[in-house]
Amino acid sequence: MSERPVTKRGRPGYDQRAILEVAVAAFNEFGYDATSMGVLATRLFLSKSAIYHHFSSKEEVLELALDEALDGLEGVLRDENARVGPAIDRLAWVLRGAVEVLTSRLPYVTLLLRVRGNTVVERTALARRRAFDRAVSALVTEARDEGSLRSDIDPRIVTRLLFGMVNSIVEWYRPEGPEDAETLADDVLAVALDGLRVPAGN
Amino acid sequence: MSERPVTKRGRPGYDQRAILEVAVAAFNEFGYDATSMGVLATRLFLSKSAIYHHFSSKEEVLELALDEALDGLEGVLRDENARVGPAIDRLAWVLRGAVEVLTSRLPYVTLLLRVRGNTVVERTALARRRAFDRAVSALVTEARDEGSLRSDIDPRIVTRLLFGMVNSIVEWYRPEGPEDAETLADDVLAVALDGLRVPAGN
Repeated sequence: MSERPVTKRGRPGYDQRAILEVAVAAFNEFGYDATSMGVLATRLFLSKSAIYHHFSSKEEVLELALDEALDGLEGVLRDENARVGPAIDRLAWVLRGAVEVLTSRLPYVTLLLRVRGNTVVERTALARRRAFDRAVSALVTEARDEGSLRSDIDPRIVTRLLFGMVNSIVEWYRPEGPEDAETLADDVLAVALDGLRVPAGN
Repeated sequence: MSERPVTKRGRPGYDQRAILEVAVAAFNEFGYDATSMGVLATRLFLSKSAIYHHFSSKEEVLELALDEALDGLEGVLRDENARVGPAIDRLAWVLRGAVEVLTSRLPYVTLLLRVRGNTVVERTALARRRAFDRAVSALVTEARDEGSLRSDIDPRIVTRLLFGMVNSIVEWYRPEGPEDAETLADDVLAVALDGLRVPAGN
């Protein structure tokens, strides 16, 4: 290998990743449809052609942004901790992992949660999100069948309420705020698995 | 009193309430900003002036729609069951009531949850929503102080996670679906207060 540094495409200071971050912030602020490549160029102090140097289309920007969220969530499911052991422990792992992905990739997950399926890219992302939800729902059912989760609530409702709680974090979580992500994951698991009530007699 | 029927304003079949329902559905589908009085008139097969007979402006339509959601939620807090008795029971009442309002006034609460504060009407609604959230947060703190709720989670986080779970119901609940509202309220209380886990030894 030669020692010549890898040539970066585009202007110094703006690699593909940096453009992606600015684009996702704009999509979340103004909506994907309302954010043109021209708007992005203005925000980045770049020409449109400089952006097209990195991305073939606005839809490719969206695709990479949604991948960032979905790859994170799917990575949690692929981990050995999600595949081996009692279902209740695997479910706890997945919930904790989802909170971790959500807080560490906040703008990307925010974008994912707003996708409504208007384009092929969006529909593909929605299908991957539904597959993730189904995998968690299957874990809930397994944990119920092994006797570690209560069986008086429909597993689909359980999954929806769990994701309602987890996904709502994007509405208020700020990385610079007082709550660190790990404590927040502990809190979610405590509420979801053990509930808020102090048992009578304690 | 004479027996003459009360004169309804507007065309037969469209009282203020019926227009409000169609308007809220349109606001939720297309967004408030994107829905003009002209769009509403087309959807209602009415002239714009027929709508202006009932509402002075689009903002008044929004105001009445948001009132529908907020009056419902505030009514839950005003009930004696929210004001008298152990805090844990009052909290349970309020959570159950919030689920009931959400399911019975689904499009109105959906609209409320999307309000971002661009106009005076929206900012007033947001302030009322925040006051409701603060009242619930105060109940969480009271229940914690009386020893009936666990004390190892910040009450503000607890309130946010509870509302995350409750509010997410608008994303998937359908009145014609298999879940009835009362069972759903039971499920929310079961998850939130007692948790999903079957205690060890059971």
